[in-house]
Amino acid sequence: MRNIKIEIQYNGKNYCGWQKQPSSLGIQGTIEKAIYEITNEKVKITGSGRTDAGVHALGQVANFKIESNIPSEKIANALNAKLPKDIAIVNSCQVDDDFHSRYSAKKKTYRYLIYNSPYRSPIYKDISYHVKYELDFEKMCQEAKSLLGEHDFVGFMSSGSSVKDTVREIYDISLCKKEDLIVIEIEGNGFLYNMVRIIVGTLVDIGRNRIKESLEAVISSKSRSSCGHTAPAHGLFLKKVDY
Amino acid sequence: MRNIKIEIQYNGKNYCGWQKQPSSLGIQGTIEKAIYEITNEKVKITGSGRTDAGVHALGQVANFKIESNIPSEKIANALNAKLPKDIAIVNSCQVDDDFHSRYSAKKKTYRYLIYNSPYRSPIYKDISYHVKYELDFEKMCQEAKSLLGEHDFVGFMSSGSSVKDTVREIYDISLCKKEDLIVIEIEGNGFLYNMVRIIVGTLVDIGRNRIKESLEAVISSKSRSSCGHTAPAHGLFLKKVDY
Repeated sequence: MRNIKIEIQYNGKNYCGWQKQPSSLGIQGTIEKAIYEITNEKVKITGSGRTDAGVHALGQVANFKIESNIPSEKIANALNAKLPKDIAIVNSCQVDDDFHSRYSAKKKTYRYLIYNSPYRSPIYKDISYHVKYELDFEKMCQEAKSLLGEHDFVGFMSSGSSVKDTVREIYDISLCKKEDLIVIEIEGNGFLYNMVRIIVGTLVDIGRNRIKESLEAVISSKSRSSCGHTAPAHGLFLKKVDY
Repeated sequence: MRNIKIEIQYNGKNYCGWQKQPSSLGIQGTIEKAIYEITNEKVKITGSGRTDAGVHALGQVANFKIESNIPSEKIANALNAKLPKDIAIVNSCQVDDDFHSRYSAKKKTYRYLIYNSPYRSPIYKDISYHVKYELDFEKMCQEAKSLLGEHDFVGFMSSGSSVKDTVREIYDISLCKKEDLIVIEIEGNGFLYNMVRIIVGTLVDIGRNRIKESLEAVISSKSRSSCGHTAPAHGLFLKKVDY
């Protein structure tokens, strides 16, 4: 058995998320079906993490074990020939037997797109969060620095998660504005359920002056109700997983 | 009668282009229908120029004359409430009676997106040209400078155009690469039929070393066959029209 690692891009618009649902294959099941079509093997693929319905990926990682002797680097294009246009495998290679997409991950990078204009965007509508209100971008950049380092992010977690240890370390965060688009990129050793979306919602609420406290105070409060709203799924991209 | 100027964004994917066709409303007809719905007036709108099927806009301009006393600046949102999600009016104002979207235009800016990767993109597929081949980006930037200034661009015009004067002036061209995306922006006093798409196709062919001549020599040849291929419509955006 070979252990194969693949890197995946997808547009999450038409999917129920990474995970299979009783009524829908999800991204995971769609790729497993394509693997079956090229190898005749029923495999289970393991992703670096689940993404919710509507969330996109520029660099999701998954691995799976197969018997097939198809050359590892040819798996990407063989799968692409079977996959729908909203999923693409952008790399495939053989890795050590003990490589595990989820447990071996050292760092994850997410990107979030905000379209900030009084008018909706026909171009970016499915891949960005439309914020109609004026935002104090400089203040958002300044406050975002408080996220850096190790903190208990328990307030930035949606209910329903069973995670016990809510301490995470943020290695880097950048905000960049060009015309009506704001691109937020955030790197960390791991993220709680909906953590990136709640961070973005909190930054937007700070930029609108709906949250008047500093982000440092919001983090220290460890309270979900002190944080901002959960920004929508369709602005979020899993950009990169480092091992 | 008031003369109303509107700025329009659209995703051209599902349209036959700007102009009405017997079987389809086009962008123009779709907006005229929305104007009728809010004013009960059958108007003809004049665009700064036609865009082909699949071409997008970030700043198309059109004007039309109406009797209605709806406040000029409220027309944008009134129309947006009637328009499909792939068209948005992003500005509306009253202008002088003699303002004409096409004849009064002084400068146009186009943007073209190239997705340069061996793999197709699920995210950018409808708004970029997928070029699989390696491109010599530095060479493309260097050669692009030859476009600046006034030239007879007759070789960069698709057949079927009845235009006699084929001299145009290019004010600025920029190429910018970030990750797998190349963004080309080009400003000029006017463009021949398919001129931007043929310029992009020629730059790509130079970047792939399929055209070995300099761009200066290609322009001087005044021959369509010396230029490169016509890059596809769905990578092209009409970005801005200046008056």
